[in-house]
Amino acid sequence: MKKNFLTSPPMGWNSYDYYDTTVTEADVKANADYMAANLKEYGWEYVVVDIEWYSYNTGTRRNEHQYIPFEAVEMDEYSRLLPCPQRFPSAVNGAGFKPLADYVHNLGLKFGIHIMRGIPRIAAHTHTKIKGTDVPASEIAVFNNICWWNPDMYGVDPNKDASQIYYNSLLDLYAEWGVDFIKVDDICRMDAPTAEKEIIMLHNAINQCGRDIVLSLSPGPAKIDKAWCYERYANMWRITDDFWDNWPLLLNMFERCELWERHVSDGSYPDCDMLPIGKIGKGFFGEHDTNFTMDEQITMMSLWCMFKSPMMIGAELTKLDDETLSLLTNKDILGLLKLRNQARQLVRNKNEAVWMNTDDNYTYIELFNLSDDKKEVSFDLSELGIKAEKAEELWTKENVCINHNILISDIPAHGAAVYRI
Amino acid sequence: MKKNFLTSPPMGWNSYDYYDTTVTEADVKANADYMAANLKEYGWEYVVVDIEWYSYNTGTRRNEHQYIPFEAVEMDEYSRLLPCPQRFPSAVNGAGFKPLADYVHNLGLKFGIHIMRGIPRIAAHTHTKIKGTDVPASEIAVFNNICWWNPDMYGVDPNKDASQIYYNSLLDLYAEWGVDFIKVDDICRMDAPTAEKEIIMLHNAINQCGRDIVLSLSPGPAKIDKAWCYERYANMWRITDDFWDNWPLLLNMFERCELWERHVSDGSYPDCDMLPIGKIGKGFFGEHDTNFTMDEQITMMSLWCMFKSPMMIGAELTKLDDETLSLLTNKDILGLLKLRNQARQLVRNKNEAVWMNTDDNYTYIELFNLSDDKKEVSFDLSELGIKAEKAEELWTKENVCINHNILISDIPAHGAAVYRI
Amino acid sequence: MKKNFLTSPPMGWNSYDYYDTTVTEADVKANADYMAANLKEYGWEYVVVDIEWYSYNTGTRRNEHQYIPFEAVEMDEYSRLLPCPQRFPSAVNGAGFKPLADYVHNLGLKFGIHIMRGIPRIAAHTHTKIKGTDVPASEIAVFNNICWWNPDMYGVDPNKDASQIYYNSLLDLYAEWGVDFIKVDDICRMDAPTAEKEIIMLHNAINQCGRDIVLSLSPGPAKIDKAWCYERYANMWRITDDFWDNWPLLLNMFERCELWERHVSDGSYPDCDMLPIGKIGKGFFGEHDTNFTMDEQITMMSLWCMFKSPMMIGAELTKLDDETLSLLTNKDILGLLKLRNQARQLVRNKNEAVWMNTDDNYTYIELFNLSDDKKEVSFDLSELGIKAEKAEELWTKENVCINHNILISDIPAHGAAVYRI
Amino acid sequence: MKKNFLTSPPMGWNSYDYYDTTVTEADVKANADYMAANLKEYGWEYVVVDIEWYSYNTGTRRNEHQYIPFEAVEMDEYSRLLPCPQRFPSAVNGAGFKPLADYVHNLGLKFGIHIMRGIPRIAAHTHTKIKGTDVPASEIAVFNNICWWNPDMYGVDPNKDASQIYYNSLLDLYAEWGVDFIKVDDICRMDAPTAEKEIIMLHNAINQCGRDIVLSLSPGPAKIDKAWCYERYANMWRITDDFWDNWPLLLNMFERCELWERHVSDGSYPDCDMLPIGKIGKGFFGEHDTNFTMDEQITMMSLWCMFKSPMMIGAELTKLDDETLSLLTNKDILGLLKLRNQARQLVRNKNEAVWMNTDDNYTYIELFNLSDDKKEVSFDLSELGIKAEKAEELWTKENVCINHNILISDIPAHGAAVYRI
Repeated sequence: MKKNFLTSPPMGWNSYDYYDTTVTEADVKANADYMAANLKEYGWEYVVVDIEWYSYNTGTRRNEHQYIPFEAVEMDEYSRLLPCPQRFPSAVNGAGFKPLADYVHNLGLKFGIHIMRGIPRIAAHTHTKIKGTDVPASEIAVFNNICWWNPDMYGVDPNKDASQIYYNSLLDLYAEWGVDFIKVDDICRMDAPTAEKEIIMLHNAINQCGRDIVLSLSPGPAKIDKAWCYERYANMWRITDDFWDNWPLLLNMFERCELWERHVSDGSYPDCDMLPIGKIGKGFFGEHDTNFTMDEQITMMSLWCMFKSPMMIGAELTKLDDETLSLLTNKDILGLLKLRNQARQLVRNKNEAVWMNTDDNYTYIELFNLSDDKKEVSFDLSELGIKAEKAEELWTKENVCINHNILISDIPAHGAAVYRI
Repeated sequence: MKKNFLTSPPMGWNSYDYYDTTVTEADVKANADYMAANLKEYGWEYVVVDIEWYSYNTGTRRNEHQYIPFEAVEMDEYSRLLPCPQRFPSAVNGAGFKPLADYVHNLGLKFGIHIMRGIPRIAAHTHTKIKGTDVPASEIAVFNNICWWNPDMYGVDPNKDASQIYYNSLLDLYAEWGVDFIKVDDICRMDAPTAEKEIIMLHNAINQCGRDIVLSLSPGPAKIDKAWCYERYANMWRITDDFWDNWPLLLNMFERCELWERHVSDGSYPDCDMLPIGKIGKGFFGEHDTNFTMDEQITMMSLWCMFKSPMMIGAELTKLDDETLSLLTNKDILGLLKLRNQARQLVRNKNEAVWMNTDDNYTYIELFNLSDDKKEVSFDLSELGIKAEKAEELWTKENVCINHNILISDIPAHGAAVYRI
Repeated sequence: MKKNFLTSPPMGWNSYDYYDTTVTEADVKANADYMAANLKEYGWEYVVVDIEWYSYNTGTRRNEHQYIPFEAVEMDEYSRLLPCPQRFPSAVNGAGFKPLADYVHNLGLKFGIHIMRGIPRIAAHTHTKIKGTDVPASEIAVFNNICWWNPDMYGVDPNKDASQIYYNSLLDLYAEWGVDFIKVDDICRMDAPTAEKEIIMLHNAINQCGRDIVLSLSPGPAKIDKAWCYERYANMWRITDDFWDNWPLLLNMFERCELWERHVSDGSYPDCDMLPIGKIGKGFFGEHDTNFTMDEQITMMSLWCMFKSPMMIGAELTKLDDETLSLLTNKDILGLLKLRNQARQLVRNKNEAVWMNTDDNYTYIELFNLSDDKKEVSFDLSELGIKAEKAEELWTKENVCINHNILISDIPAHGAAVYRI
Repeated sequence: MKKNFLTSPPMGWNSYDYYDTTVTEADVKANADYMAANLKEYGWEYVVVDIEWYSYNTGTRRNEHQYIPFEAVEMDEYSRLLPCPQRFPSAVNGAGFKPLADYVHNLGLKFGIHIMRGIPRIAAHTHTKIKGTDVPASEIAVFNNICWWNPDMYGVDPNKDASQIYYNSLLDLYAEWGVDFIKVDDICRMDAPTAEKEIIMLHNAINQCGRDIVLSLSPGPAKIDKAWCYERYANMWRITDDFWDNWPLLLNMFERCELWERHVSDGSYPDCDMLPIGKIGKGFFGEHDTNFTMDEQITMMSLWCMFKSPMMIGAELTKLDDETLSLLTNKDILGLLKLRNQARQLVRNKNEAVWMNTDDNYTYIELFNLSDDKKEVSFDLSELGIKAEKAEELWTKENVCINHNILISDIPAHGAAVYRI
């Protein structure tokens, strides 16, 4: 059974939204430095290196390929990928991510990496061994078990003992490096027939490696009929495909949160994906400011925190402006992530949504205006069996009066208000 | 919002498994009498008249039709179906089900009826009115919104005000009669495009009728992506198509309970369907004893109670044998229905399943042998962070010793053991 | 086996595109008069009364319903629908369509009607009899076998003998009236599980009625894997859902013709649907001129004739302008319908299509410009193993020179050129 | 456009049914010798080497893999696979299949080979070049375009010019070798998104190579909505997945032939797959005699010949028994393959099927008993508008009398009779 060392969803930074496949050791350190200095006190702690850290020449043919097929990768003799020294110079001589993890740990933060499900294709074609065995990679690699959008790996055969040994060897290596978090890709929505079994193998590998490592599954949407599997074996799982800074995706997240709200519990977090705020997109087709309005960002932060989604910042931290920073450092809003009860959606229709949660002292109610115009949104507190005459809005810190027990707010288009009552 | 007057799932008897469409007033009274005398003290209280109580000549062409198409039905001037006096003599002169409900209430029990979603086809074709309006049934009936397996009704148009008025008039009538429970059919799995809106109309109609009436939805399987709707508007909803006495259906229920376990809460119960035990099937093709072995019945009772499914007996009560009666009167097992926490599946594979729940004093663990052979099933209590040296098995009342903190039981094929620790 | 009295596809006029459900006897006569005077000599001969000729008050609630549910219909004692005397006054006193058919025949033309698959719903609910039997309609009507878009009928049970007797009684009546063509609706794309068997029953009913009656099946798209059934039992079958005057539908027809080109043979014609030209739409939401450009109309006429689709004019004939009339009276183009060989598509891509057919003397080649701009379209005649130096374009009657054996034409957007070589 | 040098479907022998992946040069020669001596005069002429002729160690791990993943293959410097010298010793020193093709040609026969769609995976991973270019295989190989059942290849990108150049280089090589027939696999049912374009590239490559080479596409079922593509670019295409010696597959072929009967024409043959008769299966899990009864074999031969399917013998020819040989040397039956008209199914139901074709002098009618018992099958010749009093059965050479113009035959279970009238 899953070891549960989390009582609230992980919070941190992830390199993908800004750097795509091009993040370097220097970039990671700069973001970690910023986090330690400005965000750590608010609970932000994970620094995660996303996809393709093992590949050469990443980003050099971006118009053709996000992931260059058949490109060289850095790999050890045991079919295990290593950081590419082109971008991670401290990884030379087999040091792997240990120097970078040490750096992050020294800042009082935690270190995470992304991996693809499976074993490198090149390992199968060159018959490198699995550590501690005489079994070559070609014996566990499944030739027709591939990721449709990334060319690096073959899935492994769960019926072969060496497959578990391979995953164990991976996690042993990551534990040596000091990895605290793995985001495993091409696994969550179970495109591959072996995905469920590979989740269990990863869980087993973590359990045996001697280190507390968060298991994060990507990409979504996760399958609701596999909720029990995710809850039992993983810590977080993406409930959407890649989330970006446009309103239809954000609007759609309300439907996804409705679907998954009953599956939030200690150590188990349906994941709304990274926060595409601030400066993003440099590794894609050029750095840009988030397309979300400030009201939409408030909606996003309010929903993610109420729902207790994992919180991973997509922005380049060193370029954060004050307004964005203020979104990330609102202790009342972030406090929703720590509530012990399950949040619940009360209303969802074309124009509005209402969510709530409680702790011993307060009821927290979020009113969302999903329409494209400024709009009054209200909720009758009697439906919850509570009576109140005033409330505090947690973004503005304003105290408001409640008449006839009906909470009313005038909310901008795509905006939200969060009340503590 | 739903008025919530239930803190545990409804328990009772339903006429379908034994009588199909042929149940009479005398049959209902006899079963109610038995329940009052023998089962009431264990919590059994609902007496439910299932399908076709409004139709003439039911059961007379059983080889051709379960539900005779275009057959005469009893209906009032307001397009509302009434009990057919052929089988419910006390219903004459517009008395409806009031006399029978009174009888059941006088026994200290509760009275329920089945209805089909929609408005009678014949009402549409003869243009009878909706009560309190000049609108004919033909204005709200939707000609292509039909049930595929029952010929009686047309679905109603949720965009017409008179549709809500019609449902209100139905529930007003049922409240007058003293109905405590309605099982609405052709609605739960949302075959019809209007089903979700008809659920809300039914919920509204109940809220306005002035009586606490349980809203039960049939048939399943319910749609998991509509869980929020069921939880918000209904009290129970079928998570399976009709459940009968064969092992593959019972085995399959473990998968269904896994899917729905997070959606059990006060007043909201995913429904595993009636218990096809004792004598059943008379109205179908002849009375027979349940095909379930006693071990399978123990498995069924254990799972239903742990999961907190509604409990509706399918047997003809007056013919219950002692062994079956003992299944229905085990206070420890039935006590699981009252636990305040959500039960959880801990293990499910081809051969075994393990479920648990807790209260302030105890942990309850069920071990199931899903294989076709006698088998030892075990569970390491350490996984739950508990330590124990003994436990009581709640079917046999035997105390067992626990070695090395591992609960072990030798369980017959398709059987179960239930431990209180 | 099908009696085959057709050697080229039927040509005629159909009331639907202009009148929808509102066509009257006077309208039919006026169009027949026009056809006899102006079109008959070019091969146009069928005059077809489309949907709802048996219903009262058609078109009176057009904003709500194209087909008014539960509205009164004219029906005989044998469950057979009759023309509604509101719109067909000559049908009174049981005369049915005989007087109108006689009128059409006296003009040297042929008479057709539309029917819906099945038996009237009201016949089932009122238990009227099947002619020559004691069987009531309710015994053959199938309560859950309905058309999704028209409320009039129930499908019939092909396992009951009385169902064939019912269809025979219908065709006997139509033969008495002098009907030459039936367009049977809700049957071609086999939405209903009984559709294939109802096609065979209709075919049998025609074979026994003693009159040559064309069997036309609607709506499409027909199922390609049922091609053998259509070819064996019907004379024409729709390969598309309702076709209207917009370019995407016309463009799409090239794909459909490709799919069906091998299934054109004597007496068997995949049907591209009516020609929405001239004045259309009065019974819908107001008369308007076709939205097709003249080039698009040339494309449509060229493709339909080459493919040997049935040709049914949708326009109100009495309002035909000269240009539209010229489209319908080009003997060279219409002559393609009489070719004895199967036409073949030679090219189809995003921007162009080429079709051909041959007779003993000539090769006919059509070049289509499917793009949105004027464009040169060419075809190398060597591919067909033919050599030519000149050709005649059949719309313009121009002679053109062919250089290097390559047929080239500068064609307007969405236009066509038709060459006889 | 396709060069058409075929006027009847190809006839020959294919190594797959007997040898699977293990066929050797000696085996091919032995079968070619037999064909030349015993079958050539009846029209059999193609000798086809099926799958994996380029792979090492084929068949050595048959319990695990039909096609060993990541196994060594023989390949030239231009990413083109060559015969593996382990099994084709004459291929050494770059001779390829030329010596074997010469051998076959010297017997007066034709030589064919199987290939997989695409370019070898190992070519992509090792970046070998495309002939005549500087483009490495990795530039045209598509990392996620794979065959699901064979590990050898990546599909190629049809948007890259070098992909056509690659296919041209393949066909140039095959033309040099003297190949007369290529069976291209993983392409016919268009599992891969590029399949249709790869068919066209193969067609182009054949057209430019200077040799008449039959293009055969596998595996089926082909997509009926792509019939135009197959007819235009290929010579034969499989209408079924692999066909083996069991009755349900043979019975199912009647449905498939119905679907495709209109698509048979000169040079274009829907393909019912090899004839699994005589001794087969050695390379699978052991040699065995066909499981078809002789009546079933007569049914198969009758249907294939009437339908004009390509005829490829699956048996090891050197082990043919006399009865099987007689099936393959019945000139009257094989003569059906040469008829100039399209054959037509006249009847198909659960128990029987009737097919026909004609030439200038005769009508040919096949009666099939599809039921599991001996049965009289009859057909009324009047349906075809012909009259006859006698007929010859072409398997038995018996003359039969026809009474009342009805052809009647008493046919064994799963058997057939073929009449010339």
